[in-house]
Amino acid sequence: MITKAFEYISKNETRFIKELQGFLRFPSVSTQIARKNDLWQCATWLKNHLENIGLQTQLIGADGHPIVLATAKGRSSKRLIIYGHYDVQPEDPIDQWKFTPFKPVTREGFIYARGATDDKGQLFAHIKGVESLIRTSKQLPCEVIFLIEGEEESGGTTLTEYIRTHKVNLAADAIVISDTTMYDENTPAITYGLRGLVTLEMTVKTASGDLHSGLFGGAVANAATVLAQIISKCVGPNGDIQIPGFYDNVRPLTDWEKENIQGLPQNDDQPFKDTGLKQTFGEAGFSTLERIWARPTFETNSIVGGYTGTGVKPIIPSSATAQISIRLVPDQDPDIIANLVKKHVNFTCPDFASIEIKGPLSATKAVLFDIEDPMIKAGWYALKHGFGADPVYVRCGSTIPVANTFSEELQSPVLLMGFGLDSDGAHAPNERFKIDNLISGAKASAYLIANMQKTRPRGGSRCESEHG
Amino acid sequence: MITKAFEYISKNETRFIKELQGFLRFPSVSTQIARKNDLWQCATWLKNHLENIGLQTQLIGADGHPIVLATAKGRSSKRLIIYGHYDVQPEDPIDQWKFTPFKPVTREGFIYARGATDDKGQLFAHIKGVESLIRTSKQLPCEVIFLIEGEEESGGTTLTEYIRTHKVNLAADAIVISDTTMYDENTPAITYGLRGLVTLEMTVKTASGDLHSGLFGGAVANAATVLAQIISKCVGPNGDIQIPGFYDNVRPLTDWEKENIQGLPQNDDQPFKDTGLKQTFGEAGFSTLERIWARPTFETNSIVGGYTGTGVKPIIPSSATAQISIRLVPDQDPDIIANLVKKHVNFTCPDFASIEIKGPLSATKAVLFDIEDPMIKAGWYALKHGFGADPVYVRCGSTIPVANTFSEELQSPVLLMGFGLDSDGAHAPNERFKIDNLISGAKASAYLIANMQKTRPRGGSRCESEHG
Repeated sequence: MITKAFEYISKNETRFIKELQGFLRFPSVSTQIARKNDLWQCATWLKNHLENIGLQTQLIGADGHPIVLATAKGRSSKRLIIYGHYDVQPEDPIDQWKFTPFKPVTREGFIYARGATDDKGQLFAHIKGVESLIRTSKQLPCEVIFLIEGEEESGGTTLTEYIRTHKVNLAADAIVISDTTMYDENTPAITYGLRGLVTLEMTVKTASGDLHSGLFGGAVANAATVLAQIISKCVGPNGDIQIPGFYDNVRPLTDWEKENIQGLPQNDDQPFKDTGLKQTFGEAGFSTLERIWARPTFETNSIVGGYTGTGVKPIIPSSATAQISIRLVPDQDPDIIANLVKKHVNFTCPDFASIEIKGPLSATKAVLFDIEDPMIKAGWYALKHGFGADPVYVRCGSTIPVANTFSEELQSPVLLMGFGLDSDGAHAPNERFKIDNLISGAKASAYLIANMQKTRPRGGSRCESEHG
Repeated sequence: MITKAFEYISKNETRFIKELQGFLRFPSVSTQIARKNDLWQCATWLKNHLENIGLQTQLIGADGHPIVLATAKGRSSKRLIIYGHYDVQPEDPIDQWKFTPFKPVTREGFIYARGATDDKGQLFAHIKGVESLIRTSKQLPCEVIFLIEGEEESGGTTLTEYIRTHKVNLAADAIVISDTTMYDENTPAITYGLRGLVTLEMTVKTASGDLHSGLFGGAVANAATVLAQIISKCVGPNGDIQIPGFYDNVRPLTDWEKENIQGLPQNDDQPFKDTGLKQTFGEAGFSTLERIWARPTFETNSIVGGYTGTGVKPIIPSSATAQISIRLVPDQDPDIIANLVKKHVNFTCPDFASIEIKGPLSATKAVLFDIEDPMIKAGWYALKHGFGADPVYVRCGSTIPVANTFSEELQSPVLLMGFGLDSDGAHAPNERFKIDNLISGAKASAYLIANMQKTRPRGGSRCESEHG
């Protein structure tokens, strides 16, 4: 069966590319209210496309951008949910594009357009995988549900609310998300862990208004300086976090994980090639990948204080604000960490200043999936057959809140199979998607669905973050 | 002679107020290009007013806002330069004004208008002092030159260039500046010292663009955090400066100065009444006035880094900038101090980041005038007779670059006799000037001019900053 599906995919490459270009033409920028109608049109196109393949479809949601829900029954009782999103990032900065963001073109094996890799191209690979199975056999081997949202880039809640209120109907053996990247051009990857995220905002105040630095300097505290001093008491010179208790619950890497990282193709500096970085930095005793994947961080996302007009205005700022994001690892609890930060910051703020801390403004736990889970293993084989190379197991320093939502609400393993490349330029000008990966991704998707019935369920919770 | 002049001043109070209101009606905001013509009209009004009193006048300057130069010969060869400025600060925030900024009104002994105290009212006291002597005697006791600029608030260079190119013609026995405040409502003051100022801008860079805090966090330095750490290595928790060599040339207060400060009317916390300050702060071992007057400071005037739009964007800022102003005391040299800061900051900047320091963007030495100078003594007696109270000797934490220019270029003592009050609200909404101080200031000015010929010149440089 899978041989026929793979043949179908290879034979139809040219049509797939044209169809994907049609999908990429919609400027479905979810953060821009003026493009609300474009998102509806894009969702409607997607609905019709899935319907033509043979799925039952509907658009869900009234206030925000709609969810495209599409289902196809299967021969077995197994069920796979395929997640994706049809909304895209704004095209700015427009002057740095070589092509028109919403007029897709193909050049040297890539399709260029906003949304090409994030996430329309990766999602489309799954759609074509499902199509290949439907067209080459009477019925799908297992049930497939597409859950495709239009609010991923805008942080909307339509999908989360839908999942929470439809837990029973959505019970599934696995959820597959393709919104990440391969390890490198030749190496597909299963992402089995994600960092969490807590964000906070802190404001130091020293007076009711800015004061003249000549008339008051020496007698009045400077809010910008005090904030700088507080931040430097939170995080040390190598990014090591100075907040008491912060590392208490950090789960160390297992021996297997350490060996796995050491065994990965050597490309430690590859991700930094185009960043203009002088050199990497970080906590002693960990490799670069260990730090990004398995160590928490404390980042000053923004800092603003004092006079920000042109020229120097020699005032003493009365107020200064920093926004902070903390990446979490298993088994750190977002609320406990937020409270530790608040306690430390309040303690280090001197008596002559006051500090107000807002947040957590957002809170997502880290997740870690068991690579022994049969569904994770099925994903590994699917990638191997789709891409013709042994996949590696990786973690990712980022946070994908929807992975937490699926994992926590549906108690199912989440399979993160990225079809993108780090060089695809997600969120950046000249975003692109490799045509080979569209084809290999479609094959991997078909392989996964075709082999779902071979997997056996495992007991217990699949999301390790639940124990944290 | 002085008795007649004092009588003249008292008798003409009502007219003086009306005339000052006429002067205050011009919206002579030098920083706003749209008001260039208002400045010309204001300068022309002033020129005509001085001409009507009997002085030779001219407007100088083509590109910037003009200088009003007015001279009146005197019986003796002594010469006094009276400095003032007719330009004013912008009226923003306009919604906080109880009155219309350029429609002067009198209420309970005060004239309210933008520029009332800074500096039109204080300057006008001198004009009326000169008028009183001209009207009550045939000739002035000494020569008087008014040098009135229109670029004080905008940092223009027209006056500085004029002084530098007319040193010989402007040789004078003293320069009087009334652009400061009294010690308190009942106590006039001679300001015999000013702090200097050096400003710098420092930018930390860690990458060529902001990076994703999930994908890169732990491996990439955060420019905002690094800048915060650098600042906290420049200045300690009590404002004590950590830069090696920074205090090396700081001239300590003399015993006389310490006693003088201790003997001042007790109002240590008075200046902080309306600041909303939790408590004053500063270096241990010094009183509040000692810190403001005689200790250097390191202020973060502004700090900006990362994403400053709405919401939290969890990026790693690649760049962060701080503007720094350092108040100097005798005998700190601005260039030496700027170099010490640069050296320290470069030293503390870690290898994985780069720092660029611009500046000095401005550099003014501290000045300290000898209170034994006969002209300073003459000023003391003038204030005593004008205000009917013994003046005190004070220093000021601020910087008045024109005082340095006069002192350095003309090698003459600069007499800082403030007629304003701290509560006048210079630069703030509802700026005002006390009518009693207009009258007392005019009398002090008349007294000073009338007694110029009694002073004997002293040898040597009068500006102690020259030794620094």
